[in-house]
Amino acid sequence: MTFASSSSAAASLTRTAASRAQATVLRRRGFGTYPGQPSGPNVLTSSVPGPKSKAVLDDLNQVGDFRTAIVALQYPKCKGNYVVDADDNTHLDMFGQIASISVGYRNEELEKVARTEEFAMAAMNRPALGVFPPVDWRATLDAGLRKDSVRPRGLSQIFTANCGSTANESAYKACFMAYMHRKRGHSDFDQKTMASSMDNAAPGAPTLSMLSFKTGFHGRLFGSLSTTRSKPIHKLDIPAFDWPAVDWPALKYPLEEHEAENRKEEERVIALVEETIEQWETKAPVAAVVVEPIQSEGGDNHASPHFFRRLREVTIQKGVYMIVDEVQTGVGATGTFWAHEKWDLPTPPDAVSFSKKMQAAGYYHTEELRPSAGYRNFNTWMGDPARAIQAREIIRYIEAHSLVSHTASMGTQLHSILASLSSRYPTLVQNLRGKTEGTFQAFDCETGKERDALVAGMRKRGVLVGGSGERAVRLRPLLIFGEKELEIFAETLEATLKEMA
Amino acid sequence: MTFASSSSAAASLTRTAASRAQATVLRRRGFGTYPGQPSGPNVLTSSVPGPKSKAVLDDLNQVGDFRTAIVALQYPKCKGNYVVDADDNTHLDMFGQIASISVGYRNEELEKVARTEEFAMAAMNRPALGVFPPVDWRATLDAGLRKDSVRPRGLSQIFTANCGSTANESAYKACFMAYMHRKRGHSDFDQKTMASSMDNAAPGAPTLSMLSFKTGFHGRLFGSLSTTRSKPIHKLDIPAFDWPAVDWPALKYPLEEHEAENRKEEERVIALVEETIEQWETKAPVAAVVVEPIQSEGGDNHASPHFFRRLREVTIQKGVYMIVDEVQTGVGATGTFWAHEKWDLPTPPDAVSFSKKMQAAGYYHTEELRPSAGYRNFNTWMGDPARAIQAREIIRYIEAHSLVSHTASMGTQLHSILASLSSRYPTLVQNLRGKTEGTFQAFDCETGKERDALVAGMRKRGVLVGGSGERAVRLRPLLIFGEKELEIFAETLEATLKEMA
Repeated sequence: MTFASSSSAAASLTRTAASRAQATVLRRRGFGTYPGQPSGPNVLTSSVPGPKSKAVLDDLNQVGDFRTAIVALQYPKCKGNYVVDADDNTHLDMFGQIASISVGYRNEELEKVARTEEFAMAAMNRPALGVFPPVDWRATLDAGLRKDSVRPRGLSQIFTANCGSTANESAYKACFMAYMHRKRGHSDFDQKTMASSMDNAAPGAPTLSMLSFKTGFHGRLFGSLSTTRSKPIHKLDIPAFDWPAVDWPALKYPLEEHEAENRKEEERVIALVEETIEQWETKAPVAAVVVEPIQSEGGDNHASPHFFRRLREVTIQKGVYMIVDEVQTGVGATGTFWAHEKWDLPTPPDAVSFSKKMQAAGYYHTEELRPSAGYRNFNTWMGDPARAIQAREIIRYIEAHSLVSHTASMGTQLHSILASLSSRYPTLVQNLRGKTEGTFQAFDCETGKERDALVAGMRKRGVLVGGSGERAVRLRPLLIFGEKELEIFAETLEATLKEMA
Repeated sequence: MTFASSSSAAASLTRTAASRAQATVLRRRGFGTYPGQPSGPNVLTSSVPGPKSKAVLDDLNQVGDFRTAIVALQYPKCKGNYVVDADDNTHLDMFGQIASISVGYRNEELEKVARTEEFAMAAMNRPALGVFPPVDWRATLDAGLRKDSVRPRGLSQIFTANCGSTANESAYKACFMAYMHRKRGHSDFDQKTMASSMDNAAPGAPTLSMLSFKTGFHGRLFGSLSTTRSKPIHKLDIPAFDWPAVDWPALKYPLEEHEAENRKEEERVIALVEETIEQWETKAPVAAVVVEPIQSEGGDNHASPHFFRRLREVTIQKGVYMIVDEVQTGVGATGTFWAHEKWDLPTPPDAVSFSKKMQAAGYYHTEELRPSAGYRNFNTWMGDPARAIQAREIIRYIEAHSLVSHTASMGTQLHSILASLSSRYPTLVQNLRGKTEGTFQAFDCETGKERDALVAGMRKRGVLVGGSGERAVRLRPLLIFGEKELEIFAETLEATLKEMA
């Protein structure tokens, strides 16, 4: 079925004079009609996955665990906002490979760069960056990951890594080292400290902790998983550090309608953070707090800029570092390059981690978080020049096409549509969030069962959206998500809701 | 200075009739004279790093920690076995980016693949493999990482990851899950288990352990670092799990001259492993033992095939999984594709991890190590098709040029040279190891200070070798290391030793 030429009440919501004018601007820039992409979703099979996808996934399941796979994709046929599966079904992708695709499938400018000597050479001659960096490594960083328009304000340093989990864990290590350095007051290690470190025992391997928030997600390796509190399926049977976690503020949505009571709840949590840091001082002192600007796997849980400013205040008062995990929120999707820009912090966070849409991973940090000696925070590859070149080109493309402000503007329109549908289908579309967060939006269904049905209903109509937490639908469109896609999304969601209601 | 045309006694050691015949064969295949590579090292500056490298590294140090860097390289100018630094010094690279380069710098066949549509597309359209795998993912695996000639015998399954640490930690997770599954006898989780997992507490986050060996190295994230026991600098100030570690057998080298006493020492350690597993049963049961075939960062410490067969026996008897960490030893450098092939195990290990020379990372495993449900061992990218394509091409190149048997044969010659130098410089070249391990060889100097001087002496003459452990020199030449390079190495080592003696 094709939605390209159909029309609906929800779609018409986007057709104000203002949005028409905007659409013209965007089309001129090449979006809304992303060059060469399909005109709309097209599902040919009676179910998704279709028989060919099923066969591919069954085959893969023989050699690894692919029970989680939704469909197998023909990547060569994907384009712009659209993916094509093994059965030639075309889907509008509003999930973006778990929020990691930014500037579109088969982006010609990116693939052109991929075929340059610079990229081919970087990919096939991967250095051990910490020992033999390329002569132009600083230039690559400065033109991309460390570009003035990109690098978070106040953070001069960068540590590159390979994925979100390794980025976060390397930042944790830096915080633990800096915390102990400050406590010791010097950079020498006595014999007892050195020897005990080799036995995984204090004082060399100190009993310190990372503080995180309940329902938060920071990765799935042993350190990052110890700060992840999303779902049992992520954590069961894996040994974890005894580290503290505090409530995430239980806010009422939409935020702007419940400011007073939300403020109170946020203050309750801030007090809890303070108390927890104090209580753990004798048990396992908290070296750092790690926090997502929007809890992205755990249910799209938001908090206000006020909350984060207070958190920064408390961490400074208590001498605890603050890591902002922007692995999912970073790189434009929230309508600013970094979600934490909106907080207007008087003092920057100590570290900001990134991955996903950047394609390269790592964290920005203060000078204080530099280790006291070389080889302390180190590994073989220390990042990847090929991925750093890719990040440089993604950034260039985002800036050339003003995709961050485009996404902010698309977010406003997306929110209007969801607000209208929420008033008409209040049990299926509730607790809207992300009004001012670009297209990084979400809503709840009344139950998890309804949420699953809604996601499946969208999928059979050729629109891929994700779930998060217990009953949230999370939208993670690409940064090139335009007016036409918005129209299709609105029509598809409405048709799904109509069928479910 | 150039060594290309000089001659020495050490070099002449390689010139037996047999080796001459062999060299002819290798040259015919394109090695010994790797196409287009420099004829020898050429150091133009009075010290290494030279002024230009120093300037590049100083500049990099402004934005990150590059105190560990030796020289900055001009990667476009590197070729075959040789790297060219910022000052145009040419070095014979026998360290290979910490043992991660296999088939030569600027390998034309690899770079040709990098520029294909297949690779460019894979690199710039990175999937979330666990959710939307490419239709040809199984084919990519089967032609490369899972190829019959590559996949360790008895291990049908593969889990792909991003680096050695993430490969090992994902394998650890699989072992913990399988261990608990076996203990429970079913795949259901009760409410108490689910709830406690969210609090990082038992029974949901059980107090289990991984057993590793002292002086071993398995990575630097929180789980892998807890099994790493190489050096304090790797571990200081980082919280660690209270997990057991047992002695590595303190063997006498060369192994073949001390078989009886080494056997006794290995049996002592095997008994220690058994005891430790028993002792920890009430404290934190050991779910798995992780072991390197050759302890590579911790000092190039070897053990005999007998030791590993006994270790496999004990792990089976005790119901403990066995992970073989082939991150540094894998992919041909030891003269077999996997170092553990030489053990002739009656039962394969439960998991074998890889990274470095494969450029792709992950672990092979048994069906028993598949998680009981989807999403239990999962992350966003789940590996990288671009790196899997690169691995496929590396494997194809290795096989087309018989580089594994070539490396075995080069190892024999390399060992002869080291044996001769050892008899002439017994304090500076002692405890030779790796006679039957391809070019994956090492020797000790009497002291760490002498080792550092030797490595520096080689470096100023344009040959890069590494150190490991307290006083070992580790050799990690590429798989394309040929007769000519061996000659240069022999001459350079001898000149260095002569100067030091």
